[in-house]
Amino acid sequence: MRPRPRPELQDLKPYSSSDIAGGRILLHANENPYPLPQPVMDEIAEATRALQLNRYPAPDPVELYELLAEYNGVDPSQVFIGDGANEVLLQSCLAYGGPGRKALLFEPTYVMHHRQARMAGTAVAESQRSEEFDINIDDAIATIEIERPDIVFLCSPNNPTGNVTSLDDVRRIAGVTNGLLICDEAYFEFCGVTALPMLDELPNVIVVRTLSKAFRLAGVRFGYGIASPELLDQLGRVRMPYGQSSFTQIAAPIVLRHRTEVLKTVETIVLERGRIEERVAELPDTDVTEGGANFIFFTHPEAERLIGGLAGKGIIVRDFTKQVPGAIRVTVGTPAENDEFLESLTALV
Amino acid sequence: MRPRPRPELQDLKPYSSSDIAGGRILLHANENPYPLPQPVMDEIAEATRALQLNRYPAPDPVELYELLAEYNGVDPSQVFIGDGANEVLLQSCLAYGGPGRKALLFEPTYVMHHRQARMAGTAVAESQRSEEFDINIDDAIATIEIERPDIVFLCSPNNPTGNVTSLDDVRRIAGVTNGLLICDEAYFEFCGVTALPMLDELPNVIVVRTLSKAFRLAGVRFGYGIASPELLDQLGRVRMPYGQSSFTQIAAPIVLRHRTEVLKTVETIVLERGRIEERVAELPDTDVTEGGANFIFFTHPEAERLIGGLAGKGIIVRDFTKQVPGAIRVTVGTPAENDEFLESLTALV
Repeated sequence: MRPRPRPELQDLKPYSSSDIAGGRILLHANENPYPLPQPVMDEIAEATRALQLNRYPAPDPVELYELLAEYNGVDPSQVFIGDGANEVLLQSCLAYGGPGRKALLFEPTYVMHHRQARMAGTAVAESQRSEEFDINIDDAIATIEIERPDIVFLCSPNNPTGNVTSLDDVRRIAGVTNGLLICDEAYFEFCGVTALPMLDELPNVIVVRTLSKAFRLAGVRFGYGIASPELLDQLGRVRMPYGQSSFTQIAAPIVLRHRTEVLKTVETIVLERGRIEERVAELPDTDVTEGGANFIFFTHPEAERLIGGLAGKGIIVRDFTKQVPGAIRVTVGTPAENDEFLESLTALV
Repeated sequence: MRPRPRPELQDLKPYSSSDIAGGRILLHANENPYPLPQPVMDEIAEATRALQLNRYPAPDPVELYELLAEYNGVDPSQVFIGDGANEVLLQSCLAYGGPGRKALLFEPTYVMHHRQARMAGTAVAESQRSEEFDINIDDAIATIEIERPDIVFLCSPNNPTGNVTSLDDVRRIAGVTNGLLICDEAYFEFCGVTALPMLDELPNVIVVRTLSKAFRLAGVRFGYGIASPELLDQLGRVRMPYGQSSFTQIAAPIVLRHRTEVLKTVETIVLERGRIEERVAELPDTDVTEGGANFIFFTHPEAERLIGGLAGKGIIVRDFTKQVPGAIRVTVGTPAENDEFLESLTALV
């Protein structure tokens, strides 16, 4: 006899990114296009050689907490770590969502937020962003007062549109909700706007970050949350034993110690983002959203044709036409990659 | 305002293993005491140096699936991978448990099973094992018919007691339940008894394994499940994007390719298990359970005093007195470590 899966999850198809077969220039996954400096990789490899992999990892890697606290100007007791920001987001939903509870999303936003809420058995309410994909703060407050969500997801810079929510709006949303406000700041380093300084006055906020983007460590799957120790204590109840691997526990601290050098690519990426946005906006029929992350977002009436044409030249971008009519998200690559993308796009348009 | 955590999870304290401060001989976490051979570690370190950590890991690492399939004599489509067996167990609960559903455990058993079911919002029913910690099959069947669980956890060899459930009993349990039968075989390699050959006739069974024990890879956090593709499709719905880290995707295949050498310590551990069980059984007032894993389990009326006395000599064992009166679980170490444990225990008794 076949066991019965949960009927309420049957519309959740397994997550998949883009088809990258034949891809030469990968601009679909918001990765940092610059590999870590070889000396940093050598240091990671040397530390790996000495690992005792037959032993479980330290359940609470003190140095890693301290380095994250130092980078963010908080106390180590305010830091929670996970296998990618996604695990921290899921654990936030498991701890504060669940059966009989509700999460509010400002759509279009990061598709995993909906999934994480649903996986935890949480109902999902949606508020639509404006035509420019900003949060309309009056709508947001009205929706929160009607829906009374247990969790509010606020992605800033917003994936996939790039919009940065003002700190005033974050404060107003945090003040009006009785629930947990999850500020997903995966792309923080590319805009510099963060809710972090408000944490002392807002005990219902968790700021979620990652080392996958600015820190060039997507392959390691490491993210973290910053919040009050009382709030993080709840996330501890839904943690797996031992948590992050021994490799993560050496790679993340090495990269954080070298952060001055590792973060140097952020400036180039931000400059390139501006350049690409400007160039794409000059093309006919494009509508570009000004973004604060490491990607650009625009619409075009023939988006599918453009995406296919780019793929034909080995340039993989992300198709968001199912979420937003005509929408394409393009990760900022190296200047040479961006040139090639712009050239191909111009030819196709 | 503080957000309200889920009231139904407030009795779940963050998982913790033993206090290992001052520990010289670590026999508390069922780790394999033998580090990987240095050539294998060197190969892992070299492959690490070449990783492009700025890129996300492959979402579906084909070679890893193939190596696991080959080792287990199944098709790659029957393999599902996770960050430790624990993640696969949690995902099984998210996919088949959840609100309004029930899981059945045969207690005492692995404490995470209860937690994983509860994290997913699943109610938990318990059936008590016999005085020798075996599953009483008639009781089990009666309980399943009364409780109608959506998930049945069956840990064999059972952690922490070591009992191996007969394949006849596994088949009867699988046949009587409408739910998912999770056969947690984390310690399979130390007994050789597996439900795997029954999978074709039992479409409601998932066998869950790990590379943390026999394969000496606890630090990597890697586990897997084997089941029908239809069953695994449901687990795909609750997977995180990108899944296993780039490091896991090189370390696990390297260890699997070297499995003839890596698994050589299993025989020594099994012999040592028999030797320790025999020696402990000869001591006054001990009651030893014959086990099939890489640990021994026994009771003694003064267990707390013995555990404290061993810790005083730097030997850390696991206190299970809160689950079973007088119970101690001791991981099989190297012969020299086991000698020291036996000597100290004998002196204390």
